[in-house]
Amino acid sequence: MTSFNSEERELLHRILRARRDIRHFRPDPVPEDMLARILEAAHYAPSVGFKQPWNFILIRSMEVRSQIKNLFEEANKEELEKLSGDERSDLYSRLKLEGIMESPLNLAVTCDRDRDAPFHLGQGQMPEMDLYSTCLAVQNLWLAARVEGIGVGWVSIIDPEKTAKILGLPNHIQLVAYLCVGYPIEFKDRPMLEEAGWKSRLNLADLVYEDRWGQPAK
Amino acid sequence: MTSFNSEERELLHRILRARRDIRHFRPDPVPEDMLARILEAAHYAPSVGFKQPWNFILIRSMEVRSQIKNLFEEANKEELEKLSGDERSDLYSRLKLEGIMESPLNLAVTCDRDRDAPFHLGQGQMPEMDLYSTCLAVQNLWLAARVEGIGVGWVSIIDPEKTAKILGLPNHIQLVAYLCVGYPIEFKDRPMLEEAGWKSRLNLADLVYEDRWGQPAK
Repeated sequence: MTSFNSEERELLHRILRARRDIRHFRPDPVPEDMLARILEAAHYAPSVGFKQPWNFILIRSMEVRSQIKNLFEEANKEELEKLSGDERSDLYSRLKLEGIMESPLNLAVTCDRDRDAPFHLGQGQMPEMDLYSTCLAVQNLWLAARVEGIGVGWVSIIDPEKTAKILGLPNHIQLVAYLCVGYPIEFKDRPMLEEAGWKSRLNLADLVYEDRWGQPAK
Repeated sequence: MTSFNSEERELLHRILRARRDIRHFRPDPVPEDMLARILEAAHYAPSVGFKQPWNFILIRSMEVRSQIKNLFEEANKEELEKLSGDERSDLYSRLKLEGIMESPLNLAVTCDRDRDAPFHLGQGQMPEMDLYSTCLAVQNLWLAARVEGIGVGWVSIIDPEKTAKILGLPNHIQLVAYLCVGYPIEFKDRPMLEEAGWKSRLNLADLVYEDRWGQPAK
């Protein structure tokens, strides 16, 4: 039975802390062996009912990416309008929130809602569990990319239905994550939004309760 | 800028592969310093808009856990009925799908849907992004537990609304994961559902497409 020593434990924590959401990329391609390891890590994620509900669409086509980029521009304009009159409007407009065209690879991670139908083990009470499993795969992928020196950025400011249409997703396939992947300009020490002054890291102790909501942990 | 060598990369992959969904626990308590490191790892997960939408409820009370266990029994009975006449019914009834009472600690991970309201950066088009962020925290937690030799099992066969009531969750707080945490009897080489013959690991290459759904990757 595999066990890990304290140095190995420390290394995992270093990886977890060194991971960043990346929006500034170098154009160099992601080597194929690296990409294979990154996808393999995703595939080793836990999944409800061992369903492995994910698929991965590698988007190299500049034509497809330019359509997605248009979706981002459209959606981000709507978002900025929501901040009209808000003092954070200027800051928001300066944030770089995607790297769709600059990154060498885009990657859509989807969830097959019909996989293993009709009996969905573990989803009778929480039907969203397959979507959650797909998120766990994304986190594995993100960490595996980090140890390769590859950055990942999650783009959520796109209309998922229009994205699904561009990617030709059947109705039962749901987009979970649209990722930009490639060598980053740099891995910063802190999250970009923290550095930019958008929001600070919360104090973990304030987020932990015992036995029921609101009851401080001993 | 932190970089990782090939040995460190291999170690991450060993951790990812050694992680299991655990349902058989030893009663020994989880040491407090380990628990602190595990929660800290969760808190270092990426989150949409750096929102950190999660809370952690440590459930030590046997009374609370026995109520949750009742929810499981109730829900699992319904699930088994769905398999009536299905050849997998017997196999399903023999699966151990939770360790609520045996594990020394239960842990509810929740998502605050109102955190940072009214402007939810990155959620205008995908409002579920805060739930997804919370899942990423669960995967960090799961991996950090694994390197400590601590097992985690995700219990999804419980009614989330009844669970929320037991835990006193306000309306804007959504249960994402109900976890059992503790030293496992063992970490098996393969997922329990694979070993039990419920389902095999899929072939990763079959799950990868290029540029659009269904188009084989080069």
